[in-house]
Amino acid sequence: MLLKVFVIVLSISQVYSVPKRKSYSDLKSCNLGPLAKEIASYDTVVRSILDYVRGPFKGKTYAELAKFVDKFGARPSGSDTLEQSIDYLVQLTRDENIKDIVTEEVKVPHWVRGKEQFTLLKPRVKNINGLGFGSSIGTPPEGITAEVIVVSSFDEFSNISEHDVKGKIVVFDPKFVEYSVTNIYRTTAASVAAKKGAVATLVRSITPFSINSPHTGQQSYEENVVKIPTAAITVEDADLMRRMFERGEKIEVQIQMSATTNDDKISRNTLIDLKGTERPEKLVIVSGHVDSWDVGQGAMDNGGGVFISWAVPVILQRLNLRPKRTIRSIFWTAEEPGLIGATAYEAKHRNESHNIDFIMESDEGTFAPLGLVVTGTQEARCIIAEVLKLFESINASTLVESDSPSSDINVIVDTGVPGAGLYNANDRYYWFHHTEGDTMNVEDPDELDLGAAMWTAAAYVIADISVDIPRAQDKAKRS
Amino acid sequence: MLLKVFVIVLSISQVYSVPKRKSYSDLKSCNLGPLAKEIASYDTVVRSILDYVRGPFKGKTYAELAKFVDKFGARPSGSDTLEQSIDYLVQLTRDENIKDIVTEEVKVPHWVRGKEQFTLLKPRVKNINGLGFGSSIGTPPEGITAEVIVVSSFDEFSNISEHDVKGKIVVFDPKFVEYSVTNIYRTTAASVAAKKGAVATLVRSITPFSINSPHTGQQSYEENVVKIPTAAITVEDADLMRRMFERGEKIEVQIQMSATTNDDKISRNTLIDLKGTERPEKLVIVSGHVDSWDVGQGAMDNGGGVFISWAVPVILQRLNLRPKRTIRSIFWTAEEPGLIGATAYEAKHRNESHNIDFIMESDEGTFAPLGLVVTGTQEARCIIAEVLKLFESINASTLVESDSPSSDINVIVDTGVPGAGLYNANDRYYWFHHTEGDTMNVEDPDELDLGAAMWTAAAYVIADISVDIPRAQDKAKRS
Repeated sequence: MLLKVFVIVLSISQVYSVPKRKSYSDLKSCNLGPLAKEIASYDTVVRSILDYVRGPFKGKTYAELAKFVDKFGARPSGSDTLEQSIDYLVQLTRDENIKDIVTEEVKVPHWVRGKEQFTLLKPRVKNINGLGFGSSIGTPPEGITAEVIVVSSFDEFSNISEHDVKGKIVVFDPKFVEYSVTNIYRTTAASVAAKKGAVATLVRSITPFSINSPHTGQQSYEENVVKIPTAAITVEDADLMRRMFERGEKIEVQIQMSATTNDDKISRNTLIDLKGTERPEKLVIVSGHVDSWDVGQGAMDNGGGVFISWAVPVILQRLNLRPKRTIRSIFWTAEEPGLIGATAYEAKHRNESHNIDFIMESDEGTFAPLGLVVTGTQEARCIIAEVLKLFESINASTLVESDSPSSDINVIVDTGVPGAGLYNANDRYYWFHHTEGDTMNVEDPDELDLGAAMWTAAAYVIADISVDIPRAQDKAKRS
Repeated sequence: MLLKVFVIVLSISQVYSVPKRKSYSDLKSCNLGPLAKEIASYDTVVRSILDYVRGPFKGKTYAELAKFVDKFGARPSGSDTLEQSIDYLVQLTRDENIKDIVTEEVKVPHWVRGKEQFTLLKPRVKNINGLGFGSSIGTPPEGITAEVIVVSSFDEFSNISEHDVKGKIVVFDPKFVEYSVTNIYRTTAASVAAKKGAVATLVRSITPFSINSPHTGQQSYEENVVKIPTAAITVEDADLMRRMFERGEKIEVQIQMSATTNDDKISRNTLIDLKGTERPEKLVIVSGHVDSWDVGQGAMDNGGGVFISWAVPVILQRLNLRPKRTIRSIFWTAEEPGLIGATAYEAKHRNESHNIDFIMESDEGTFAPLGLVVTGTQEARCIIAEVLKLFESINASTLVESDSPSSDINVIVDTGVPGAGLYNANDRYYWFHHTEGDTMNVEDPDELDLGAAMWTAAAYVIADISVDIPRAQDKAKRS
């Protein structure tokens, strides 16, 4: 999961406004009239889906996800492994007797980490567990060896003179506040520091918890600023260097990174359609992204999201349930380097964007489902809130409001399409995010079952009810 | 912390009985008479110690621990770093105007990990994050490449034929129950597997939680059994191989370890005495071990234990508090390879063992103190329980009973000396234990203050009260 890296402003003088999540509190003003009763009548089909997933389908989502991530491991943008894993998903879906599958080509970045070595040389020699950030340049083969200054914030850095930065490695040690806030250090530190003559940056991993685990992720260079190597270090090593720095000890670090940005490659978005019975042109989209970082297995980010979205057409097909509108399951490619697949899809399908009734993505974990994170008009939220009441038996009825519901689909939601991310019990999400610890051990079979069932049933109901999910402009027209 | 590795039986057919901890429930039968009142009268001095540590001494224990572990990092048995760190502790104590310090030489093992590389070759190539176990032999330079079998338990292994083990690498994947139970796989797996012709063992790290973090620790070879290389792998990789194995996939792993066991080195136990005013021959001992594993900083295991024990004479000296009995602070050496320092101390001081009134060690974390883990007669426990009442204001009054209160001192407690470990809020202790994550980030300044204050005040009261802590034989004599 990458949170809108590319809307992050590149000048630190600008204020980065964080899309805040808030619980939806104005439901009492909802007045859906007979629609409420209509939605409530889906209770039987929702229960049949829940029963199926907890019965004959039990453990299937976990088992298929495990087979997939165990077989391919990490699936970084530009890699052959990513393409092979997409082929596998297409075949796995075909094997379910679902034939309406297309892949759409997308040009994607091909950054390769190569060998990396980070070493504390002074005040004592110690290996530093680091991970270069996506799109970082490498170092010369002999590495970069330089004195370190440790800085807590961009504010603090703005008060340090160029003289004190020039030729140095800047360690940014911002305390974790929340991902969307603290993440700006990962995404922009290199250019911020390079403007004052720094030779490299090391950034405290963006996480509230660590067992000496570095967290990678995408960064981006500002135009017309010298590019310098940039990498994550662990919370522990950042804090170690902070303490040494505060004691007035001279710190020296050597960084060796052989990262390269190669020519773009062709990858693919995967679209699986379960054609609607009455209004097939109208789409309810469920989705996740197939690519991952080049560490761990990408089980959580975002294998889980892909597999509960894969489960939607599979379960409906097996249950012979066909809603009025088409359900499209999309596996985005190249989310991690900057929502590349989703951006390409939006551009390619812009002229039929009015046909997207509702778009969903799971990219913040597939822990126990709690509800949906929704973007849309008051009317749209009222309808979704009513749909969520169908999930009271599994405690997944909470509607959270956000103008940034989930990474990839933000690209489409930003054009006015209503949508939702999976709201789930993901308190520990950032403990594993973009680390070697993103493996099947984070996933739980029963939680995946609940997620798949809820994802399937919610998509079905939204795709089958008598009304479209209203959009801002619809509302404007009516009022 | 190493839990009695060397009392673990080497034949799996024998039952390994785990020393169970239980809450002390028969306090109501305590009848201390006037002693209860006497102990209660220490309330003022206990409060003055607490006030001092939370006032002028605030943050000192954390700051000194941080300076120490940041300066030296890991301090494995046999290393020059360990000896330098002992010199530093002696000087740090001298600087507090404490002169009664001796070091006693001990021959200690000198195992050196060297370079290690673990690689999954089939069904796909993947780096495995592993850590050889202390005392393991290395592999030939070209490594060992072999097919893998995955086994959950020694029970399961006993049912597998030699034919199916011979020439293979055995992955033991026991689910974590509790450290003292599951740890037997780390300590004995190599010889168990070698008896059936295995060429190496990889053992699931002994931990309830992981971010792909391998946990090292000591192992021991059974006599007259072929020695094979043995290492920890992460929970994640063990589970990955289990899943692959259960799918019937052929697994092949390459292990390269250049571990060597060198000649023993001379290290030292450090003894700091605050001489008693009335009965200086009688000892109340507080302790921790200076050595650590060769990963992380050894901040938790066992820098924290050393520094709250260092704080005891320092705080009493600063407050000009001298109890009737001598308080001895001991920094054990070479605990990790098998309680080497403590065993040497016990042998050297056996003839004066009757003078040990009470012995304490902190080696299971210095999180928020909760009380003491006590070994001793009913009478002894009644007295300690009364002392613990003095710590109700900091919620550290719990007495837990155990016949194995803390690693090193078990050697002495086993001879009939009453003793205690620090009972503390260490729920996450094994998350970091013997990993790169054992750093200052696990420690908290306020919790260390509380631990140091409680450790100091408890030792003071026990060393000053009018009665000795009774022993089993005393009781036997009397009854």
